[in-house]
Amino acid sequence: MDAISVIRTKRDRGRLSDAQIDWIVDAYTRGEVADEQMSALAMAILLNGMEREEIARWTAAMIASGERMDFSSLTRPTADKHSTGGVGDKITLPLAPLVAACGAAVPQLSGRGLGHTGGTLDKLESIPGWRAHLSNEEMLDVLGEAGCVICAAGEGLAPADRKLYALRDVTGTVEAIPLIASSIMSKKIAEGTDSLVLDVKVGSGAFMKNLDDARELARTMVGLGTDHGVRTVALLTDMSTPLGLTAGNALEVRESLEVLAGGGPADVVELTLALAREMLDAAGLPDADPAKALADGSAMDHWRRMIAAQGGDPDAPLPVARERHTVYAETSGVLTRLDAYAVGLAAWRLGAGRARKEDPVQAGAGVELHAKPGDRVTAGAPLLTLHTDTPERFDYALEALTGDAIEITEDASYEPTPLILDRIA
Amino acid sequence: MDAISVIRTKRDRGRLSDAQIDWIVDAYTRGEVADEQMSALAMAILLNGMEREEIARWTAAMIASGERMDFSSLTRPTADKHSTGGVGDKITLPLAPLVAACGAAVPQLSGRGLGHTGGTLDKLESIPGWRAHLSNEEMLDVLGEAGCVICAAGEGLAPADRKLYALRDVTGTVEAIPLIASSIMSKKIAEGTDSLVLDVKVGSGAFMKNLDDARELARTMVGLGTDHGVRTVALLTDMSTPLGLTAGNALEVRESLEVLAGGGPADVVELTLALAREMLDAAGLPDADPAKALADGSAMDHWRRMIAAQGGDPDAPLPVARERHTVYAETSGVLTRLDAYAVGLAAWRLGAGRARKEDPVQAGAGVELHAKPGDRVTAGAPLLTLHTDTPERFDYALEALTGDAIEITEDASYEPTPLILDRIA
Repeated sequence: MDAISVIRTKRDRGRLSDAQIDWIVDAYTRGEVADEQMSALAMAILLNGMEREEIARWTAAMIASGERMDFSSLTRPTADKHSTGGVGDKITLPLAPLVAACGAAVPQLSGRGLGHTGGTLDKLESIPGWRAHLSNEEMLDVLGEAGCVICAAGEGLAPADRKLYALRDVTGTVEAIPLIASSIMSKKIAEGTDSLVLDVKVGSGAFMKNLDDARELARTMVGLGTDHGVRTVALLTDMSTPLGLTAGNALEVRESLEVLAGGGPADVVELTLALAREMLDAAGLPDADPAKALADGSAMDHWRRMIAAQGGDPDAPLPVARERHTVYAETSGVLTRLDAYAVGLAAWRLGAGRARKEDPVQAGAGVELHAKPGDRVTAGAPLLTLHTDTPERFDYALEALTGDAIEITEDASYEPTPLILDRIA
Repeated sequence: MDAISVIRTKRDRGRLSDAQIDWIVDAYTRGEVADEQMSALAMAILLNGMEREEIARWTAAMIASGERMDFSSLTRPTADKHSTGGVGDKITLPLAPLVAACGAAVPQLSGRGLGHTGGTLDKLESIPGWRAHLSNEEMLDVLGEAGCVICAAGEGLAPADRKLYALRDVTGTVEAIPLIASSIMSKKIAEGTDSLVLDVKVGSGAFMKNLDDARELARTMVGLGTDHGVRTVALLTDMSTPLGLTAGNALEVRESLEVLAGGGPADVVELTLALAREMLDAAGLPDADPAKALADGSAMDHWRRMIAAQGGDPDAPLPVARERHTVYAETSGVLTRLDAYAVGLAAWRLGAGRARKEDPVQAGAGVELHAKPGDRVTAGAPLLTLHTDTPERFDYALEALTGDAIEITEDASYEPTPLILDRIA
């Protein structure tokens, strides 16, 4: 078996055999297949595709490259959720303790932000003392204590994916549906959850810009989960505008706390409850009532226990950026567009995100929205406020919001896009 | 400018801008763009193609990556030839001194064999004392002394191509017509020849397996040469069976000497004369008579001067392999197939070629043919003889010749493929 013959098979639109897939994933993980060989293969996969059987085998090979976790010591059914990433997508923060409050165990392995999308771990790290990196034992302890845990995936989980993801990031091969699906699902299956709900984002602020691609990705992932005995459901949700009224690290923690306190923006509450119901259903707890757990404070209680168990102080004040700059509406009318990608890019440029994996992020930086698409605005009213510790970045961030990023019209027929676009099970 | 945006442009079937091409070729040569990024781009080019303007700019950028040679001190017009590579293709050996004997200067930069095709430098190195590596000054001295020189390209010539070629070789991206064409032509244009004749091989023993691909490659290269002021002509020639009766290093030198002595196999003589006439025409010497220069010994005289000027002893006996094994015809009839790829693979397995660039080759190893397609053979008559210093390789080499590599039938209608299939100018 050699790398060139595997590359040629896919280059020439062939189907990779099980033996070819097993060999190349293992040999790449061990360093026998070089980065330049794997990137050529990744480009061939992106352009020529993979059949369902190939994706399943590729996923299995990535799982086999590392350890598998074991939650069998827990007495509760496990439920996990994965979002393909968007702007202002803080849903994991209220969702994990909410589902824990309703009776499931939620082992939530999360990542950091790269590019214009934020990362769950970056957001939680704005809480003083909170630790993202836990050993497998610590993870089980937090799960036992709080019913939920949000932490970084350990080094031992799907190391092939870790290596391949970093490679795809620098070689223009991120957007391959077979590779996105196998990357997400190999980690979730190796993690060992009983059930999984996928939030597949569609729109300018997401990887998938149109509904057809998002449906294909969702179907591929649901198939992979099901084939591996994980009850898997996907919601396709809108990412043409940010979720909620904030994009940024501490800003999004604050908004999540509002939701856990029974308030918060309507879209964040709607999506949190919809995903919670799917998770509880998949975990065999269809009678649980997540709306009640938000209203009666039990979700907030699980949040506080989880944060404290991971070293954080749930009562400590959250960081606030040193400087602010507000943008005002130039005309009166209906806000018909507030582009997710533009807001994500502005938050990133303000310091909320990172250009390279090594870069630090600013806890307080980001964008706060004062209106959402569908809202009526008046000329001179505040539209959004930029937050940063480094005010020299304001101009660069404002550039992201020019052009057609923001649109105010008198179009009476405008209807905002529904939040939940489809469900695939 | 960054590598990912250039990769994405080609991945998404866009046209690379001049600025993108100039930047990425330069940044790759300097090491700023990584191998894994260039291999992803090479795969995208292979699968999505390039327009003529992109190939021209890519070639110009590769030329600009290094030095350009200058033959303006020579009083004779320069003519060069390039073959895309085949089995038994020793034509450069008699051709260069033959064209020199007819009045042109022939600066022939050549390569080593990789895979089943032989390399001109490997063949000449079987002559005791002969040196492939010359400085630019030594090259001009040999040209002045003998009218021709066959040597390795210097390190300074198109370094971008040197680096990219090595990368393509291990990433399954050799077979991209835009990259093959720009690789060949960047070196030939940087070398500074006035005229160039291309021998584009078609058939099982060549890179191009069918006439359409070969025509596209030939047209692309002729266009590139013409655009850069090099008078360029291409012949498309058959490579379904080996050229001549030998494949191997010293074996091919011996056959070349037969041609220079006025004899040799009919196909080698035919192709040598056809290419010589094209080179002399392109060099502005249409009245020269290459057949006479073979018959009167003047081509042999230039050969001896060239070999001696490069340190070789033209009278030294050539190496002979220690062991031989002859294959006999199993039935009587007409030899209708003697597959070029199978013979090339057998010669390679016997030790005539190398698997990696660092490997040594055996000077005496190879395959000697006793019949050519179209010949009548009798059961029990010798068909071919294998030569090697390492007889444990016989079985492995014989395996290459099984299946439908050799075919003897009583099909009276069989006509061998013509040697010269097309001409593109």
